[in-house]
Amino acid sequence: MTQPENQTLSPLRLPEGKMPVLRMMPSPADANVYGDVFGGWIMAQVDVAGSLPAVRRANGRVATIAVNSFLFKNPVFVGDLLSFYADIVKVGNTSITVYVEVYAERNRLQTNVVKVTEATLTYVATGPDRKPRQLPPLESLLIEP
Amino acid sequence: MTQPENQTLSPLRLPEGKMPVLRMMPSPADANVYGDVFGGWIMAQVDVAGSLPAVRRANGRVATIAVNSFLFKNPVFVGDLLSFYADIVKVGNTSITVYVEVYAERNRLQTNVVKVTEATLTYVATGPDRKPRQLPPLESLLIEP
Amino acid sequence: MTQPENQTLSPLRLPEGKMPVLRMMPSPADANVYGDVFGGWIMAQVDVAGSLPAVRRANGRVATIAVNSFLFKNPVFVGDLLSFYADIVKVGNTSITVYVEVYAERNRLQTNVVKVTEATLTYVATGPDRKPRQLPPLESLLIEP
Amino acid sequence: MTQPENQTLSPLRLPEGKMPVLRMMPSPADANVYGDVFGGWIMAQVDVAGSLPAVRRANGRVATIAVNSFLFKNPVFVGDLLSFYADIVKVGNTSITVYVEVYAERNRLQTNVVKVTEATLTYVATGPDRKPRQLPPLESLLIEP
Amino acid sequence: MTQPENQTLSPLRLPEGKMPVLRMMPSPADANVYGDVFGGWIMAQVDVAGSLPAVRRANGRVATIAVNSFLFKNPVFVGDLLSFYADIVKVGNTSITVYVEVYAERNRLQTNVVKVTEATLTYVATGPDRKPRQLPPLESLLIEP
Amino acid sequence: MTQPENQTLSPLRLPEGKMPVLRMMPSPADANVYGDVFGGWIMAQVDVAGSLPAVRRANGRVATIAVNSFLFKNPVFVGDLLSFYADIVKVGNTSITVYVEVYAERNRLQTNVVKVTEATLTYVATGPDRKPRQLPPLESLLIEP
Repeated sequence: MTQPENQTLSPLRLPEGKMPVLRMMPSPADANVYGDVFGGWIMAQVDVAGSLPAVRRANGRVATIAVNSFLFKNPVFVGDLLSFYADIVKVGNTSITVYVEVYAERNRLQTNVVKVTEATLTYVATGPDRKPRQLPPLESLLIEP
Repeated sequence: MTQPENQTLSPLRLPEGKMPVLRMMPSPADANVYGDVFGGWIMAQVDVAGSLPAVRRANGRVATIAVNSFLFKNPVFVGDLLSFYADIVKVGNTSITVYVEVYAERNRLQTNVVKVTEATLTYVATGPDRKPRQLPPLESLLIEP
Repeated sequence: MTQPENQTLSPLRLPEGKMPVLRMMPSPADANVYGDVFGGWIMAQVDVAGSLPAVRRANGRVATIAVNSFLFKNPVFVGDLLSFYADIVKVGNTSITVYVEVYAERNRLQTNVVKVTEATLTYVATGPDRKPRQLPPLESLLIEP
Repeated sequence: MTQPENQTLSPLRLPEGKMPVLRMMPSPADANVYGDVFGGWIMAQVDVAGSLPAVRRANGRVATIAVNSFLFKNPVFVGDLLSFYADIVKVGNTSITVYVEVYAERNRLQTNVVKVTEATLTYVATGPDRKPRQLPPLESLLIEP
Repeated sequence: MTQPENQTLSPLRLPEGKMPVLRMMPSPADANVYGDVFGGWIMAQVDVAGSLPAVRRANGRVATIAVNSFLFKNPVFVGDLLSFYADIVKVGNTSITVYVEVYAERNRLQTNVVKVTEATLTYVATGPDRKPRQLPPLESLLIEP
Repeated sequence: MTQPENQTLSPLRLPEGKMPVLRMMPSPADANVYGDVFGGWIMAQVDVAGSLPAVRRANGRVATIAVNSFLFKNPVFVGDLLSFYADIVKVGNTSITVYVEVYAERNRLQTNVVKVTEATLTYVATGPDRKPRQLPPLESLLIEP
């Protein structure tokens, strides 16, 4: 449901030279009465975040087939600014595995950054019949995923 | 994002003699324009489903610390009636691991049941300071988790 | 809006040998600032719950035409686990009347069950033109509603 | 779930010289894939509409205790502009019964008004302990409910 | 995000002899943890409110092209009853400019009305290709916008 | 409500060397039945986006007091990836004016970027009494807004 505060907060920064695929602030409607954001809300955003490079690599629609691992390293609070980073780590014939990291900027007033989540998800490229389809060759893509 | 249709649908039934911890119908707001329910929506409900026996065993608040595995075996559609089953599979000093299965009754007009998701999640019992706390002894609980 | 606490809470249990048609936990977004779940939210779920056996009996789409009675017997709180039971009590040429009961498991830590709502609603089977249509004979249905 | 179209639409107008207590347009998220607004969504808004004069008469918090009757006379569509009228019809020691009517302006381009819902709901004035409390005398109120 | 309380509250009343185009109560899900309704939620409703007379004048679909001005004069709280008034102030070949005012009835128990927002927005009539289209002559309309 | 498609789409790119303050994909629930995202939804996100540098500069809570201008330059569709950029353009004694630009990456498959919105909003720093408060001197801030 929510996440435990079980880490020493080291002075962390957002990854340099990388663009978050998603960046958002959870609202009170996404949290319990204590202001802790639901783990399920975070999972849902991570799923979207991971799908973005997968859709580019697949040059079309994808479907989530597995969450291989998912760690909640620190709780997320209403008012945190969350940055989601997603990188393709493995490509099969029809499937794409993506590593997603989520960082929270807390208080918004200081350089207080904590890593809150890291996860690996696998997507499969799908056709109009919802069945897996072959990934296009990398050279055929106009942009890099 | 969504889930591929990659399975032969065998004539399945809901588990006998077991009570789903959650049972609900996704609405159009939970789906893409094709009527496929977002994988992230399902993850969010699975997180709640798994937390229910964990909260009972912990006799109080818990936090999700990990998704150990999560398989999307069949797509979920708007109008499916989803039944979530959750069983504790492992108990540590402060943590509880729960196995969650999700079945969809499709069409609502026939005995058409498909297993759509199975997942294993780990929760940790937390105190008012959000830090992990010792689980109470099983004998002390008034009801079985 | 919300519901008064005007009943002695007897040691109640969920109905034996019956399966809830819906089972869910209201979230903070469904409640006022005091944690009381909106009566309207409960009405909306009861409407869905009652429609489930009606859709099966009608072997297709139905529309709500009336709420015949609806009692809020106890307040519902964020964190309650709600179980909705629905039984067809009357069948006409085109209409189906359903009795819905809602029970709340409170605290989630004890066998503390309260009946929170009971209601009777009438649905009508509708065709693609949204007009009432004749119910199919009971023998023609593959499954019992 | 949704409502049948089973009425001749007479050239109707909104009630003259009366102010709707609520006026709103349902959005696609409040409807099924056919654009029919969920009956439950309408019930939820009617509950709020009826509570407004009840709160004024009670000079404070109220709770819904019963829906005495509720008729869906015409379907509601995404894009309809809905006007809710609410009048107190009965006052007891602690309870207030309110009659709610809902009209839809359809197409928004013509004087096409249909009555979609009428309902009677009973609210009870509640104290901070959520228990029923005596209604204040009518003379003590600064404004008419 | 939210709005400052920077005005003396004079004994104000809702505009006489005018009908609000929208009237609604923001819910806790529309507010921050202090009960202040998000400025963005108000903007979204003002956009809908202004579109209503524009759609009538355009006799069909419109698109927002500009917010010319928007003042938050007083904060809005959960529980306020908001009335939105919208008047066309300028009509071009394809565009319609609308002035929107929002009043809040506070406490619901007294004649305590505050003006919370005033805004001017411009809409353009659009065709099925989403491109601007000529407004119909005023005489051709069956009803006044 | 929605936005017209009235621009030649030049080959545009996201601003170089700048970090979006928000980055998100609107979902079907944020759009009309044609897949056009509601103008109001965009306004709401722009309000949050602009508040982020304002909160940093104010070293605490702010309230929106005015939208000075807001242009919808191109429609936004479900599936667009939106990047919000926000820069402080003016600072007064208690107020902060922010310029917000929104770009959409369309199709997600090509380098197809369109500027969809630009807006200027003014926020005021507020104290616990919701009244305007003096901005802290720039030197006192630990981080640049």
